[in-house]
Amino acid sequence: MLKKEMRIAVIGLGILGGSYAQGLSQAGYDVTGVDIDYDTLQYAEEKGWVRRAVSNPAVISDCDLIISCLYPKDFIAWLKENQKYMKKGAYLSDVTGIKREVMKQIRTFLRDDIEYIACHPMAGRESSGILYASSALFENANFIIVPDENNTPEGIQLARDIAEALHFGNISVLTPEEHDRIISFLSQLPHVITMCLMNRSNPEEIRKFSGDSFRSITRIARMNENLWPDLFVMNKDVLLEEIDGFMQEMADFREMLEDEDMEKMKEKMRLSTAKREQLGI
Amino acid sequence: MLKKEMRIAVIGLGILGGSYAQGLSQAGYDVTGVDIDYDTLQYAEEKGWVRRAVSNPAVISDCDLIISCLYPKDFIAWLKENQKYMKKGAYLSDVTGIKREVMKQIRTFLRDDIEYIACHPMAGRESSGILYASSALFENANFIIVPDENNTPEGIQLARDIAEALHFGNISVLTPEEHDRIISFLSQLPHVITMCLMNRSNPEEIRKFSGDSFRSITRIARMNENLWPDLFVMNKDVLLEEIDGFMQEMADFREMLEDEDMEKMKEKMRLSTAKREQLGI
Repeated sequence: MLKKEMRIAVIGLGILGGSYAQGLSQAGYDVTGVDIDYDTLQYAEEKGWVRRAVSNPAVISDCDLIISCLYPKDFIAWLKENQKYMKKGAYLSDVTGIKREVMKQIRTFLRDDIEYIACHPMAGRESSGILYASSALFENANFIIVPDENNTPEGIQLARDIAEALHFGNISVLTPEEHDRIISFLSQLPHVITMCLMNRSNPEEIRKFSGDSFRSITRIARMNENLWPDLFVMNKDVLLEEIDGFMQEMADFREMLEDEDMEKMKEKMRLSTAKREQLGI
Repeated sequence: MLKKEMRIAVIGLGILGGSYAQGLSQAGYDVTGVDIDYDTLQYAEEKGWVRRAVSNPAVISDCDLIISCLYPKDFIAWLKENQKYMKKGAYLSDVTGIKREVMKQIRTFLRDDIEYIACHPMAGRESSGILYASSALFENANFIIVPDENNTPEGIQLARDIAEALHFGNISVLTPEEHDRIISFLSQLPHVITMCLMNRSNPEEIRKFSGDSFRSITRIARMNENLWPDLFVMNKDVLLEEIDGFMQEMADFREMLEDEDMEKMKEKMRLSTAKREQLGI
């Protein structure tokens, strides 16, 4: 359970880390911000999002909960280097967008007196850096906790308490396998699709001739090249399957169009309309 | 040129026709609304969007400009039946989303004392019917005029004046071939893509686990089954090419992922990001 007297360290004050620091400070927790960038530390301190803003990771030695908001590979490298500073019995959490590979790698070297509880907050923007951080990102967003056999009920409850302190809406628990499959379809595949569509476009034509539809389908076409390729590769098996499934669906529709099969096309449109209506606006 | 004393008939008071009637009335024109649905006619009249709301198409005999806001096949059928009522020298325009086929069919039977100037307002919603109509749809939207060798400079100017009266932003002139190719990529292909993605989804999973990205890429997944299959089939040659081009781009990216070619994937993301940034939010 997350208690008010617990000291929390947030590692990496980017858009997510900055938003975590802000939200947890606002909820009354004692937050230490750790980052390698001086301007970022100063910004977090001036905003009042952290009690301490420090570049030296040794500062985490008095913290009860360490939340890494680093990219997956950076998280693993940072942890290898700095777990020595953590106090016995500390909790560790994260925000990485894929889970099987990250959890597998961490289990190979994590100290056995530290409990790592994997989390994935489903919130973000197409921009990075603390200047874009805002705890409002999390209002009613989805939050996924991804425990494995090493987690305790207390660790899972702690993750739930973090999500509630940050005002997430739906908090779910998934296995690493479920998580990676669902995220592959709901987040990775849409990014691949929108990127491929965007890359075949002529921006001048879009500006002069498009309606709203092209703009909205490509809203997520700005992709952080330092994050996404790693996420894709670490989830390659599942993502390849989802790409294949989507391309088969496209090929099926292409055949209906080729055959001018009006009834089958209408059926697909009715299904799509009904499914989308369940989501609201 | 569109003159204030010209009488305009809007045929079909759905979301587009209703919005045309509202916008043209607000701009000071004399608008006659024609529809087969009594409630629709009454709504247009009560709103003050038309001077006359009439179900009998013979009413167009005193109109100088007839704008069909019907679906493509309905437009063609309506025109065959009712062009006999049009006065000599009347102008005819439309809002249909594909042009080569519609223009070709109309040229086979149109009276030679009527000038048909094809137009495509790039505005709409995922809903249909006059209850969703609003001239605000057109504020700064794109408008495409698609003349052919039968059009006069006066006819083209008239189309431009309609677009300006309705507060469209960018007004462009394209050939039917250019129009159908560009629209196929900017509107038809995105709808095929979003529909295929939506149809592979599980709405319960979306609700519990998605971030904003899935919601925004599928905003246009509600598709009017009475309109889109005809639009697709009438533009089949070009749309099949665009589907194939997109699927090749997907296949190329799939290979980069399979090969874990980080540099090529990053290059694709940089391109997508740069192109999307040119569009603004």
